Amino acid sequence: MIILGIDPGSRITGYGVIEWVNRKARYVDSGCIRMDVKATTGNRLKTIFEGLDQLIGLYQPDQLSIEQVFVHKNPQSALKLGQARGVVLCAAALAGLEIYEYSATRIKQTVVGNGHATKDQVQHMVEHLLKLNGKPQADAADALAAALTHGFHLPMVGVK
Amino acid sequence: MIILGIDPGSRITGYGVIEWVNRKARYVDSGCIRMDVKATTGNRLKTIFEGLDQLIGLYQPDQLSIEQVFVHKNPQSALKLGQARGVVLCAAALAGLEIYEYSATRIKQTVVGNGHATKDQVQHMVEHLLKLNGKPQADAADALAAALTHGFHLPMVGVK
Repeated sequence: MIILGIDPGSRITGYGVIEWVNRKARYVDSGCIRMDVKATTGNRLKTIFEGLDQLIGLYQPDQLSIEQVFVHKNPQSALKLGQARGVVLCAAALAGLEIYEYSATRIKQTVVGNGHATKDQVQHMVEHLLKLNGKPQADAADALAAALTHGFHLPMVGVK
Repeated sequence: MIILGIDPGSRITGYGVIEWVNRKARYVDSGCIRMDVKATTGNRLKTIFEGLDQLIGLYQPDQLSIEQVFVHKNPQSALKLGQARGVVLCAAALAGLEIYEYSATRIKQTVVGNGHATKDQVQHMVEHLLKLNGKPQADAADALAAALTHGFHLPMVGVK
């Protein structure tokens, strides 16, 4: 079972790919899709779509895990985040992936053991849990944390 | 010159296609992409993407006109609108369309002559300007109004 975690953003979209083998998480890949700040909104969103499409083609994930968004600072940034998030969900649905959403609190609770953990703590625990040789970039870490959370919440993962 | 106007929404996305010939607008098509309210968010967004893709393939528009969103009632509805809007902008960018955004006030000012016109007045003027045999559905009318606004703001339209 391969899980793709995504942390969408209007400037940087983090991704993390994890394979679940014998109930254990194995790190596959992670990184960021960076938008050209000078590009039009349409072309930025196209960059996210094409990046996702490439990742899905390369790793053939079964499921997508993404942070649920309940509240946001202000409507304008919620709109921008929504645009990036919509493209991610659409690309995943077009590729036939099952989509799972987890609240930020649940992701932090699952990965760090504290629903109010800092970004730094999330990065640290992702590094530890996946036995990485260094702290992943913040957005990539959030994406890996989403993927890990989904894996930990699937009781039958790796057993089929 | 063919202009595709879009009024994105999390439940209904209105569209309107207008051809500009000799500085005059000719109605081509309009309607709504309706999302299955029982479908997952991913599948709803997929419906918008596939609908847009079909319209673009069918009418081969040169440009997309869409309402600019500055403010919104609350962050949660802004996020949902953003998701639908992001898919529309992404589909247009992938198809190589130029994207133009106009504020709601400017669209109403252009089509009705009053930046604070009601939905009913917009529908009425769209019917009148495009010589339709009846009032278009509200979302389709908003999409046609966006397409008309773009046409009226292009001085060289239809001349090339």
